[in-house]
Amino acid sequence: MKLSRPVQMGVDYYPEHWDPALWEQDARLMADSGVRIVRVGEFAWSRMEPADGQFDWEWLDQALDTLHRNGLEIIIGTPTMTPPRWLTEKCPDILPVLPSGQRYHEGVRGHRCYNSPSMRTYSARIVQKLSERYAKHPGVIGWQTDNEFSFTDCQCAACEEAFREWVRARYSTLEQVNQLWGTVVWSGEYSDWEQITPPYGGSTFQNPSYLLDYSRFQSDSIVAFQQIQVEIIRSNCPDHVITHNFHSYPQKADQYKIAKELDFASFDYYPNPSPNKTDTSPYSGALSLDLTRGIKRRNFWIMEQLSGPPGCWFPMWRTPRPGFLRAHSWQTIARGADAVVHFRWRSATVGAEQFWHGLIDHSNVPGRRFKEFQQLCNEVNRLGERLQGSTLRNEVAILHSHEQLYALHIQPQSEGLDYYENIKVWHRALTKSGISSDVIHSSEALDGYKIIIAPHLYLLDEDTAERLQAFAAAGGTLILTHRSGVKDDHNVCVMAPLPGLLSACSGVRVTEYDPVGGDTIMIRDDQGNSYAASQWADVLELDTAQPVAVYADQFYTESAAVTRNHWGEGEVYYIGTQPEEAYLRKLVRTIGDQLQLAGIEALPDGVQITTRTGPNGSFRFILNLSPEPVSIQLNASYTSALDGTARGPHLQLDGYDVEIVEIKA
Amino acid sequence: MKLSRPVQMGVDYYPEHWDPALWEQDARLMADSGVRIVRVGEFAWSRMEPADGQFDWEWLDQALDTLHRNGLEIIIGTPTMTPPRWLTEKCPDILPVLPSGQRYHEGVRGHRCYNSPSMRTYSARIVQKLSERYAKHPGVIGWQTDNEFSFTDCQCAACEEAFREWVRARYSTLEQVNQLWGTVVWSGEYSDWEQITPPYGGSTFQNPSYLLDYSRFQSDSIVAFQQIQVEIIRSNCPDHVITHNFHSYPQKADQYKIAKELDFASFDYYPNPSPNKTDTSPYSGALSLDLTRGIKRRNFWIMEQLSGPPGCWFPMWRTPRPGFLRAHSWQTIARGADAVVHFRWRSATVGAEQFWHGLIDHSNVPGRRFKEFQQLCNEVNRLGERLQGSTLRNEVAILHSHEQLYALHIQPQSEGLDYYENIKVWHRALTKSGISSDVIHSSEALDGYKIIIAPHLYLLDEDTAERLQAFAAAGGTLILTHRSGVKDDHNVCVMAPLPGLLSACSGVRVTEYDPVGGDTIMIRDDQGNSYAASQWADVLELDTAQPVAVYADQFYTESAAVTRNHWGEGEVYYIGTQPEEAYLRKLVRTIGDQLQLAGIEALPDGVQITTRTGPNGSFRFILNLSPEPVSIQLNASYTSALDGTARGPHLQLDGYDVEIVEIKA
Amino acid sequence: MKLSRPVQMGVDYYPEHWDPALWEQDARLMADSGVRIVRVGEFAWSRMEPADGQFDWEWLDQALDTLHRNGLEIIIGTPTMTPPRWLTEKCPDILPVLPSGQRYHEGVRGHRCYNSPSMRTYSARIVQKLSERYAKHPGVIGWQTDNEFSFTDCQCAACEEAFREWVRARYSTLEQVNQLWGTVVWSGEYSDWEQITPPYGGSTFQNPSYLLDYSRFQSDSIVAFQQIQVEIIRSNCPDHVITHNFHSYPQKADQYKIAKELDFASFDYYPNPSPNKTDTSPYSGALSLDLTRGIKRRNFWIMEQLSGPPGCWFPMWRTPRPGFLRAHSWQTIARGADAVVHFRWRSATVGAEQFWHGLIDHSNVPGRRFKEFQQLCNEVNRLGERLQGSTLRNEVAILHSHEQLYALHIQPQSEGLDYYENIKVWHRALTKSGISSDVIHSSEALDGYKIIIAPHLYLLDEDTAERLQAFAAAGGTLILTHRSGVKDDHNVCVMAPLPGLLSACSGVRVTEYDPVGGDTIMIRDDQGNSYAASQWADVLELDTAQPVAVYADQFYTESAAVTRNHWGEGEVYYIGTQPEEAYLRKLVRTIGDQLQLAGIEALPDGVQITTRTGPNGSFRFILNLSPEPVSIQLNASYTSALDGTARGPHLQLDGYDVEIVEIKA
Repeated sequence: MKLSRPVQMGVDYYPEHWDPALWEQDARLMADSGVRIVRVGEFAWSRMEPADGQFDWEWLDQALDTLHRNGLEIIIGTPTMTPPRWLTEKCPDILPVLPSGQRYHEGVRGHRCYNSPSMRTYSARIVQKLSERYAKHPGVIGWQTDNEFSFTDCQCAACEEAFREWVRARYSTLEQVNQLWGTVVWSGEYSDWEQITPPYGGSTFQNPSYLLDYSRFQSDSIVAFQQIQVEIIRSNCPDHVITHNFHSYPQKADQYKIAKELDFASFDYYPNPSPNKTDTSPYSGALSLDLTRGIKRRNFWIMEQLSGPPGCWFPMWRTPRPGFLRAHSWQTIARGADAVVHFRWRSATVGAEQFWHGLIDHSNVPGRRFKEFQQLCNEVNRLGERLQGSTLRNEVAILHSHEQLYALHIQPQSEGLDYYENIKVWHRALTKSGISSDVIHSSEALDGYKIIIAPHLYLLDEDTAERLQAFAAAGGTLILTHRSGVKDDHNVCVMAPLPGLLSACSGVRVTEYDPVGGDTIMIRDDQGNSYAASQWADVLELDTAQPVAVYADQFYTESAAVTRNHWGEGEVYYIGTQPEEAYLRKLVRTIGDQLQLAGIEALPDGVQITTRTGPNGSFRFILNLSPEPVSIQLNASYTSALDGTARGPHLQLDGYDVEIVEIKA
Repeated sequence: MKLSRPVQMGVDYYPEHWDPALWEQDARLMADSGVRIVRVGEFAWSRMEPADGQFDWEWLDQALDTLHRNGLEIIIGTPTMTPPRWLTEKCPDILPVLPSGQRYHEGVRGHRCYNSPSMRTYSARIVQKLSERYAKHPGVIGWQTDNEFSFTDCQCAACEEAFREWVRARYSTLEQVNQLWGTVVWSGEYSDWEQITPPYGGSTFQNPSYLLDYSRFQSDSIVAFQQIQVEIIRSNCPDHVITHNFHSYPQKADQYKIAKELDFASFDYYPNPSPNKTDTSPYSGALSLDLTRGIKRRNFWIMEQLSGPPGCWFPMWRTPRPGFLRAHSWQTIARGADAVVHFRWRSATVGAEQFWHGLIDHSNVPGRRFKEFQQLCNEVNRLGERLQGSTLRNEVAILHSHEQLYALHIQPQSEGLDYYENIKVWHRALTKSGISSDVIHSSEALDGYKIIIAPHLYLLDEDTAERLQAFAAAGGTLILTHRSGVKDDHNVCVMAPLPGLLSACSGVRVTEYDPVGGDTIMIRDDQGNSYAASQWADVLELDTAQPVAVYADQFYTESAAVTRNHWGEGEVYYIGTQPEEAYLRKLVRTIGDQLQLAGIEALPDGVQITTRTGPNGSFRFILNLSPEPVSIQLNASYTSALDGTARGPHLQLDGYDVEIVEIKA
Repeated sequence: MKLSRPVQMGVDYYPEHWDPALWEQDARLMADSGVRIVRVGEFAWSRMEPADGQFDWEWLDQALDTLHRNGLEIIIGTPTMTPPRWLTEKCPDILPVLPSGQRYHEGVRGHRCYNSPSMRTYSARIVQKLSERYAKHPGVIGWQTDNEFSFTDCQCAACEEAFREWVRARYSTLEQVNQLWGTVVWSGEYSDWEQITPPYGGSTFQNPSYLLDYSRFQSDSIVAFQQIQVEIIRSNCPDHVITHNFHSYPQKADQYKIAKELDFASFDYYPNPSPNKTDTSPYSGALSLDLTRGIKRRNFWIMEQLSGPPGCWFPMWRTPRPGFLRAHSWQTIARGADAVVHFRWRSATVGAEQFWHGLIDHSNVPGRRFKEFQQLCNEVNRLGERLQGSTLRNEVAILHSHEQLYALHIQPQSEGLDYYENIKVWHRALTKSGISSDVIHSSEALDGYKIIIAPHLYLLDEDTAERLQAFAAAGGTLILTHRSGVKDDHNVCVMAPLPGLLSACSGVRVTEYDPVGGDTIMIRDDQGNSYAASQWADVLELDTAQPVAVYADQFYTESAAVTRNHWGEGEVYYIGTQPEEAYLRKLVRTIGDQLQLAGIEALPDGVQITTRTGPNGSFRFILNLSPEPVSIQLNASYTSALDGTARGPHLQLDGYDVEIVEIKA
């Protein structure tokens, strides 16, 4: 496995969608345009295996040979998201059963249960045959498993049986299940293993401990389904890389679990070009990219990158304005992408994705977007080798856990209190303050960071609590928020004042709380500035903590809303409410200044700055992800890595323009 | 049955949710805090009968003994809302079938068909065993049947069969059915009893006569289901009271039918503490309480009273501000509650109701809300015996009927015309004018009232029409509204000018109508003041009536909108449109002044005044159910029943403050 | 078949809903009021055939005799929309299966699958018996098939089989199916005819070529179902007319196909009397009427005309104001109705349509609306014979095709881009400019028109493209819009620059497009006026065309938005965006002035002018369909056809007033 490669550009190509007469000219235009990587194969099961056990590789041989002959390297997607019609006709148990009891019919995609024995058998065979066939193909460098894994919430007999086994493996006895899930409520106690079933009907009134475990089981089912493929490919193609293309978070499946056996994570990035999204989209995109990098704490690939307006089963989006495609591709590299594969080479003329536009339109006449892509390929190819092996090295991390998201989805705490949306606000506050951050799983080691922001540690285990306390004790700054320490790992409320296991280190106890929801309340900081807050208000008793901000209205007015506590060599902040972004920006800048973080400054709207450092030096990416021109004051003059000329200290960037400067060590 | 008791406080307690080690300290703290009543047992079927026919009473013996030892009296809830898993596994016919055809699965609550023969058999057995066991327990004083009865809209085979029998019993022949339901429309005529089924699929295009009868059948199914329990308990526990805890109206089931065999009605009262509900919540709460008192025209219990923010399968509400809990408990007593049982002692740490907060939070550290509850218990205990046997004695009644609600639900008359919402406006107009009123079923005797307000007598039978006419003829003031006399008891339109049977006494005929819906039209009273109206406009021909207000726009401008007619010794008003609340306030005050009603005055927003009179005198409850301080001018000085000091004539009340004064006869 | 008749008035009457004692007085009042036509029979299957094979005609004989005796002529509706309960009990395969898999149960109407063999057999028998019985009845003049045909989206076994046969008949081989539908996408290739099924589950992710063909199949199923009836009636009643009453478009079924074997189309017209609809309702009504006239390019009937507020399973509408009923009946005649049958004589007292009000209310006391109807009948009877044989003769046509509607429904192009709504705007722009237009199917001959407006020729075949080019080449003015030429007849995107086959004649190529959706962009015409636009923006390369308007913002600012191209003797306009109505009004008036169209002028809001010309001369209908009085300047003085007095040149009309003047040739 050769993970270290130059940063390169690629495209998604479906040779089976096109007359083979087009393949050669397509491949040549790719190569001439600077494309280096092509993803193929995904969804093509009915062409690879047109009938049960009859495999047809000729067309794919020819397609791969054509690409390879033009110097292109190939990622093959396994086609298991789309079992062909002969297969579902033969093995209808492959089709998932929805919570309503209806079958999820063929004719779409994703029409397969991860636990279906037939599906596992036939998936294993096609992946076995496919990976055998192309293990030695000189153009092939790696594999994508399936496509954008997601729950289907399947409730078929196979899922029922598998879930029952999963519960039995985890809890051993029904007494344990009843005890740890608290099934005594509403006479829900199990007296027979047969009573353990999926949540038929999907009622939201069901036991939250059970629902959380069911979601864990569903992610584990995907992991098990994928693992069959991973092991086959590893065995047949030991020198190839294996990845999976995750779609936009938040999603139902637990990416951390799924990525465990992969070489790196990939992401399908579709930033929304709507003028109404200008204020938020570049920031939620930045978070998505940082989160993807955090999945394996390693650089990643973009396996599908926006190339034109998406649409089809929903109305089309706006078309990306000039510069938008280029700027957002650079954004992915700036945040750790080592390859940017564009979806897709040409818009499909047939099928359900006709209006999910590619680089080239249906007419097959290359247009404005394609020319911008060609310019981008040239730039990336000029810089790609210098960026090889470079990574981001951040001093701040935000903790994330899919289980928090899911548990808070099962029991929404208050109107508007959304786990991931609140992470977005923290990340945006950092990004707008020039502070580049990692987003890592809450079980990760925290070494090397100066600040850990841990929003909503709603489910909290002892290990995490101890690691966080140790981090602060050793001199780190830990930022905690409301709705932390509420539950144990079984989604059961703890019988202790909140924030429970973190009460000591934060120096506060929650004496009561007000689920503020969509209402607005006010807080006031120690300089007398007022800020709006919403969602939640913890009323705090301060043991050893000091107030940093107080409530400025409500019956708990003048009591502490934000506190700071000395803990060992470090400090622990507790944020008892959800302040508006402006307050969080101010807070992170104040703390960052105290800790002398690198790069802190208030950046103009849409401007994002990150740095990749590697064997060939440091490269600072200065992106204007807004449609308006901006002025940026750099602290010195630098050499542009794009054209070698001098830049700064004053830098002017047009809308959607990009600068990359070299930083001397 | 000893119905007459001092007014007392209680809590809902689920011993099975807690480590038995906590029971003693919980009971002691209850007793020390002034609690007198504890409700237990509801939902605990899987603990009472862990397997088919195996009963385990030891834990409940111990729990009840602990409570009793601490001086607490006990209401036992029958656990029939939550059949245990072994039972639904053995008898899947217990699970309801939804209109979609799906089973209503276990894992929640209410997963039982009222007509299921298995459910009836097993319910009878558990209630038999439970009531035998605790008939002689010295702590037990009474029973709650099931919990918050509601339709499940079940369409299972048992319901189909039962409905067929119900129709046969009511109509004898299919000819009658076809005739009285008017099934000739759309060729819906029945030619075989087998064709009579529940409304599969739930289409709103179905015959309205059939749909109304189906809703009657559903309420009757609940009655029959409950009656089994009532008879068993009466037989085993002749000295105990039996009640049921109704949830907030409007609901699907007919409370009047269900309460018929009960000793008194109970209500689960959850006033919404949101600041956005300040203007409406205290008034809709007041109506709920008056309506509950009207179910049996007798004082009632609160079986579940708000103790903290509810939430769980929906986002949590705001927490009640200081004073809110106390004020709203006093509100229930002020309107006829003889016991106020708070839900619940402590918030559950497990299961689906974790965030339906109790008096004590998960931490088990009593906080602000608990202290307020303790103060309240002390106050109530000081006053409880003096209030024993006291009732409200009102001069005004609003007529209500669940069948009107349902019939108007089947065929919404115009956008915004909502039966219960319109009753709310009438009740709010009275309440804000200081006029305390009863809300009684339209079949009740009307003796003793000076004013009867009868909104939307849409379905009208001859008996009701005659009683109303007799009421007015005998000197009463009867207020009728648009959409009266439209239909007979079979939900069939009458072939007569509206208001049909009430046309003579009102002295008007509706010559046409305009379903105004959400549009606004104007009316003008006889002093030239203009008011907005909406929903509906009857165009009236006046036979003997006089106009009180006229329309001020539309093509029927200057024609009568509100009329008054002399009828015998009394008067009949007809309100042909839905005027804004301000007009109704003015109208009831004008009429009230003429009739010299007691207590009329324009009260500040949120202030409610009612009087309970009994063997120990009269007590006037002056409640400020708003967060703002208010000034109230009393007509004299009084002695405070809370602390014995003098109050008035000027009375100042803080937000959510309460005063109770003694009225000398 | 005698199609040419005087223009007459009618009513819908359901004798089976009423006591036979009422029939005679009803018929006499009809005749006295000027009614000439009565529709009966629709829905009365359970009375015509109360049990399998037992027919009861006595009641209907008596009803028809009563009507005939009073001089009324009769249309009989076949009752096949409402199979009786004994039939669906005997043949449950008649009940449709919804996409969810649930049965569509009886108890409503339309509960029958068009492809059910049982339904076809029993429908044929009842229509055979009914038409035999009344073929020679002296009062009967014609037939209405079924009622308001619509898809049920049935997915039953009969539909599955029928669809499979339909596909096989169209494509012969699965290779063809796979090729032309492009099923290779997502491995959707069929390998066995058994895999061809209805779209179970209804997912929007399905193949758009398949979905379009499935919708064609559904319309064809209706055609086949109706054809059985048509052939029986033609055989039994060769001198009677046959029609069908279409409900308001847009609807799911293809009216052009269904009307093919009928003598003329009928329409059920329910203009909304809400004051909120005043600005739009008269115009969308005008379009509905013009579209109905276009179905067979022939005058039509109104089979159900608004008589009072509709309502029932939805809240009632506002009541029609004085003049509304009369004005809207004249509107139908003004646009080609030769009979106006009002729904219904009297409001039903029973069943699901109780509040779909008739001319007479439940009370059976004729009121204001009935008196207005009587006045109208008198007017129509005075003018009816003079209007016999008269038609509209328009110079402008808008092209319409149900397949465009459906294809754009399957894949919405952008937020707000709605095929029929955009046709409405074009039609409104013409109507407000005094330009009377036809709305015809895009496959119709175009001879005789000066202007053809062809919005969204999204699906485009070569024949249509050639006819349009020939029309322009021969001197016509052709107006094309964005989203034209996108797809072939199989709903597959063409690989050519848009507008594809129309690129040459329009002289433009679309180089890219921006799906503007709900955002607003600006355009500027050649006089410097700015207009808003939305939905879409084509970026154009002009080959031979000249710009008429340019974009005034966005990255394509100053490039052409609207173009004009000389093509042979004529001109082709291309509208690359969706301008606001004001621009379209200006454009059609400019073009109309150049072509010297008749009647162009800016009419006051709500005023509509059309002319019927026939053997007895020309009659111009000047309608004020607004509630406000208006002034209209005619170009001369005319004689009123209503009362014979002089009118104009200045004409003042009250709200909802009507004038009809005679035009000398």
